[in-house]
Amino acid sequence: MNADPERETPAAATDWNRLFNPRGIAIVGASRDPRRIGGQPVKLLSTFGYPGYVYPVNPNHAEIQGLRCYPSVADIAGPCDVALIAVNARAALEAIHDCGRKGVAFAVVFSSGFRETGSKGAALEAQLLAAARAHGIRIIGPNCQGYLNLAQRMFATFGVLALEPELKEGVVSSVAQSGGFGFGIVTQCEAAGVGFRNIVSSGNESDITTPEILEAYTDDPGTRILVGYIEGVRDGRALMRAAQRAVRAGKPVLMWKTGNSDAGKKASLSHTGALTGSYDVYRGAYRQAGVLEMRDIDEISDCARAFLAGRVPRGKRVAALGSSAGSCILFTDRCAELGLELAALTPETEAALAAVLPPFGSPRNPVDVTADIFNDLSAFERAVEIVLADPNVDQLALLYAGLSGDIALACNRAVVAASAKHDKPVMLGWTARRHRAEEAYALAEKHGIPYFTSPVRLANAARALADFAGARERASARGSLFPTDAIEAFAPLPAAAGTLSEREGKALIASWGIPVSRDVLAQDEKQAHALTRELAFPVAVKICSADIAHKTEAGGVRLHIQRGEALAEAMRAVLRNAREHCPGARIGGVLVSEMVTDGVEMLIGVTQDPVFGPTVALGLGGIQAEALRDVTYRVAPFDLSSAHEMIGELRGARLLYGFRNRPPADLDALARTLVCVAQAAWVLRDRLAELDINPIFVRSQGQGVIAADALVVLR
Amino acid sequence: MNADPERETPAAATDWNRLFNPRGIAIVGASRDPRRIGGQPVKLLSTFGYPGYVYPVNPNHAEIQGLRCYPSVADIAGPCDVALIAVNARAALEAIHDCGRKGVAFAVVFSSGFRETGSKGAALEAQLLAAARAHGIRIIGPNCQGYLNLAQRMFATFGVLALEPELKEGVVSSVAQSGGFGFGIVTQCEAAGVGFRNIVSSGNESDITTPEILEAYTDDPGTRILVGYIEGVRDGRALMRAAQRAVRAGKPVLMWKTGNSDAGKKASLSHTGALTGSYDVYRGAYRQAGVLEMRDIDEISDCARAFLAGRVPRGKRVAALGSSAGSCILFTDRCAELGLELAALTPETEAALAAVLPPFGSPRNPVDVTADIFNDLSAFERAVEIVLADPNVDQLALLYAGLSGDIALACNRAVVAASAKHDKPVMLGWTARRHRAEEAYALAEKHGIPYFTSPVRLANAARALADFAGARERASARGSLFPTDAIEAFAPLPAAAGTLSEREGKALIASWGIPVSRDVLAQDEKQAHALTRELAFPVAVKICSADIAHKTEAGGVRLHIQRGEALAEAMRAVLRNAREHCPGARIGGVLVSEMVTDGVEMLIGVTQDPVFGPTVALGLGGIQAEALRDVTYRVAPFDLSSAHEMIGELRGARLLYGFRNRPPADLDALARTLVCVAQAAWVLRDRLAELDINPIFVRSQGQGVIAADALVVLR
Repeated sequence: MNADPERETPAAATDWNRLFNPRGIAIVGASRDPRRIGGQPVKLLSTFGYPGYVYPVNPNHAEIQGLRCYPSVADIAGPCDVALIAVNARAALEAIHDCGRKGVAFAVVFSSGFRETGSKGAALEAQLLAAARAHGIRIIGPNCQGYLNLAQRMFATFGVLALEPELKEGVVSSVAQSGGFGFGIVTQCEAAGVGFRNIVSSGNESDITTPEILEAYTDDPGTRILVGYIEGVRDGRALMRAAQRAVRAGKPVLMWKTGNSDAGKKASLSHTGALTGSYDVYRGAYRQAGVLEMRDIDEISDCARAFLAGRVPRGKRVAALGSSAGSCILFTDRCAELGLELAALTPETEAALAAVLPPFGSPRNPVDVTADIFNDLSAFERAVEIVLADPNVDQLALLYAGLSGDIALACNRAVVAASAKHDKPVMLGWTARRHRAEEAYALAEKHGIPYFTSPVRLANAARALADFAGARERASARGSLFPTDAIEAFAPLPAAAGTLSEREGKALIASWGIPVSRDVLAQDEKQAHALTRELAFPVAVKICSADIAHKTEAGGVRLHIQRGEALAEAMRAVLRNAREHCPGARIGGVLVSEMVTDGVEMLIGVTQDPVFGPTVALGLGGIQAEALRDVTYRVAPFDLSSAHEMIGELRGARLLYGFRNRPPADLDALARTLVCVAQAAWVLRDRLAELDINPIFVRSQGQGVIAADALVVLR
Repeated sequence: MNADPERETPAAATDWNRLFNPRGIAIVGASRDPRRIGGQPVKLLSTFGYPGYVYPVNPNHAEIQGLRCYPSVADIAGPCDVALIAVNARAALEAIHDCGRKGVAFAVVFSSGFRETGSKGAALEAQLLAAARAHGIRIIGPNCQGYLNLAQRMFATFGVLALEPELKEGVVSSVAQSGGFGFGIVTQCEAAGVGFRNIVSSGNESDITTPEILEAYTDDPGTRILVGYIEGVRDGRALMRAAQRAVRAGKPVLMWKTGNSDAGKKASLSHTGALTGSYDVYRGAYRQAGVLEMRDIDEISDCARAFLAGRVPRGKRVAALGSSAGSCILFTDRCAELGLELAALTPETEAALAAVLPPFGSPRNPVDVTADIFNDLSAFERAVEIVLADPNVDQLALLYAGLSGDIALACNRAVVAASAKHDKPVMLGWTARRHRAEEAYALAEKHGIPYFTSPVRLANAARALADFAGARERASARGSLFPTDAIEAFAPLPAAAGTLSEREGKALIASWGIPVSRDVLAQDEKQAHALTRELAFPVAVKICSADIAHKTEAGGVRLHIQRGEALAEAMRAVLRNAREHCPGARIGGVLVSEMVTDGVEMLIGVTQDPVFGPTVALGLGGIQAEALRDVTYRVAPFDLSSAHEMIGELRGARLLYGFRNRPPADLDALARTLVCVAQAAWVLRDRLAELDINPIFVRSQGQGVIAADALVVLR
């Protein structure tokens, strides 16, 4: 039961070097026509500068594109680490056996006609995988577009990237399940100045998955930034572990997931059959593991460019400095929306700025240097230096608007000089056309000062840096992503599957140490007098019968009962109503429960997510909050700091902080409860199908929580 | 009181033709140096092709840049409609008098040193405006960067746009309060292929405002798309009227407002002093008037490009067709997020598609034509034609991913041919690099087929088209933006300013016809017996005392009282507690109120917005909904259709539609109540400072609404 969840999947003993730096590559289904799928990689590998051996494989030819052609992979004499499979699905299976005979380490299967086409294809895919496993071959694909290692000029691919021999090399490595669109991300990011290293189209991910490729990138010293484009993963925890490892290694993970809406999921299922879980759970998992969530191509290229500068802020405090009031306001707006803090400059900084700025400037953040400052560039340089040196500033945004020509160049010289004295991120919001400021742009690029075409995009990038900084800090501070060291024993669950009664459910969570409101099952109103001494008013009275599904409609519920006499009357009424409305129903008695009247109403849930396994939900309670869907998720188990993060993510979190003269709620008790539920969800995962503690009231500081209901479904 | 709110500001009898097509332009403060602010427009106007007269004005020179120079505007002999004022703030005032003597119609004041610099500058600005008014001169600025009419090659400006003689002419006209950043929007949109016509930097808007310029653009036959960039406007209703007129004329209004966060507002105030109201109210007003809300530069250029094609969909139903599953899923996701509907194709369409598509394709929306279709382009052309002809499809999105070369060209030929047979919008999601598909891109441009670099941006643009279609339909259907024809009489309000008691507040709204819960003010518990017959239980008991602010804390509130005996006890307890906790407090009695226990709890509010005047808020009620800020706004008065739109905009609207087996709520009664409150807010605007009907319960269909509390503040 208490197996370390970090070690659920044994680390694959895969030699990624043979994939990314293969000594030789076979192309099964090689074609003489360099435009065909089997012909493209032959041409690319033999003419773009790949230093290894290239082996066309095709029984119908002795030579292809000037290279010796082999009838089968098994016939290849030289070293061969990778085989590209560009034949039809049935023939691909045969090719795997040939690869096994040759000792090929990786088969990259371009062929389609597998899982994405239905159940027959899925069966064929299972056979393919079984054959590969039998031979110790790892598979990329099927239904993929291959992979590249630009550091080796290795284009083992077809399609869009086959047209790009000049593709810029760099330190970003990417993996995408969708070939066509994934490569589109690469070309667009590259057009924005982002160089790539390894690019993998992972297709159906029959064997090698996105998380594994991310692990390989984390281990690759030449990769500094990881980009993933997925429709879904099968093992959510593997994705989280891979991301956390990358983040600890200082490598940001930019992740874009599609197929999130119901309509999108349907489209996704009909196309590639990737497993898609709830996107809300993905988002919770991203925050837990430090993944940066991406939502468009431009966002990926902007964030990649921000990280390429190699600087990470210490915190969320941003200073803005510019001559364009409009830009400063926009930037400030967007920062507020994104949760970045506008740094409060120290009095010393403000005084020093005031001494430097023109009379109509503003020495407060956002610092308005006015257009006048460009008449005296030394003043601009001083202002930048002063702000960068402020200990309250974690990163600096310079709003240039359309600054061009010599002035832009002089400003950038000043910025480069000031930036060199610090390790804080410095980025530019800049709308000048390239040809109006060619030298200035080139200078910024040379010195790694990222620039963005709008203050909004600059703010987005600044947020990504701050988010990554926070994620790295959290990942380093905590021992384990899914901590099990502090897990205590949980009593075994009742043996039978099914839904527990409200009383049993409450008893169960009470046994975990979660306070529950008291209730007593009474037979009839004669017990009312005794109950008056046992329970605290107000109380609720509910009919107890497995045969009455809709208690309220049957007149079987009375709330807000304040006194003993009223209690007896209510019990009598509820029993009478139940008998009248549902003649023949077996009545188990009347449940009398203390009503909780203070505290913030919330809900805590556990689900077994198909992708992430046991997952904990936290939301505001009550039908309104439910309608407004204010819920956040974490994958179980997790620690107190994750629990506090969950609380802070709720849109309605302010209710807990002391809203409208209410006292602040007991956040620590709530966080402890979340951790307890998460531990139970993990330890009892084989049996606990569902748990819904709703409502649970969070009382004022020091007063703890109290659960008023608990629905438990066992499997 | 019942003045037509559409006609609050008299239409200015301004001859905009003299501004945008001036016979001659004077430059006051003309400089011999073409790089200086006073020198730039002299150069631009005399060398870029402006056909009118150019008059440098500077008493120190007889000739400037080869043109005769005048000592004063008054000395100019030829026709002069516009004077650009590029002298310091004090001298600008003098220049206005000279302009008056000459009969100049418009002064465009570049000079800064006015309101944006503080109270002294504000006084100077008032003098400037008074002088202009006295002479019948209209002012643009001060503190602006001038304006352009590219159809006339007229660059009456300095700064960024002075560097762009090749700026592409087109049908988009823009106005921006921020010069530097506003011009940055123009250059970036133009780089994306958007041509401009008139471009105005409106600066402080001392006289001519953004709404007036939008009106002028609506009247300009050469302008088809309006773009505004504001920090705020002083007259929100003028903005709404201008937008509604433009929309009725078929011209979309793309509006970007900054200074919306608290931090952004502060930055805005310290910079230009534009009045900024609540952004939530702006957003409500946008929807009311049909303005399209913009939030970044790329969004403006994308939407402008979508509208340039000149096609507007009939509704929200979008079809997607592509060979890249990834692109289709992304597009579908984003459409769902944006409230676009994925068109349900007719069975005939699906059958026809199935006959055309390759076996692994999908004839359902999103239509997956697979990469195979490119081997037989006639099949692709047929598929596009079939989908476009479907009556359930309002617009078509083609997802090309990285399609390039000859295939892209052939596809675009097919799309152009199919598109020519319909008037539905057809747009492309396309990531191919320009130089890989040069001819195909050129063909799309020639035939007005917009393309976007990601499916996400394509979906955003499709939404803008659908939103505009809806706005235009609403604007045409309704008689008046602020309808007053159906307003009935409202009784005069009490004479005194201040806050009405709960009972008085409820009586007031009851007099407007809004049902309120019954309550009785009792002196002591002796009245309990009588009340039992008068009121329906459960009831609430509250102490009534102007001296007790916090009733609950004083033990002065008892809720959920079910019976007569409990009522007497509760009244006694409340009175006793109040006397004990607040000795000496003047006790007015005990308010006994029927408690509403059914219906959806909501709130309706009225505020006097500084920008928009009387404004109505609708939100979910209860402290949780309040913490989650689920509130929407409309400017009063408005009609039933606007009221229904408000309801539909709430995130929690599903609560009203029959959530979790609850019956659907009485939406019609809620809408009628909103219209009634809006009419009262308008008619009583001189006195009604604030109204908060909270909570108001919306009961099930046919059962109406009932207000349980009303806070009224009179001024």
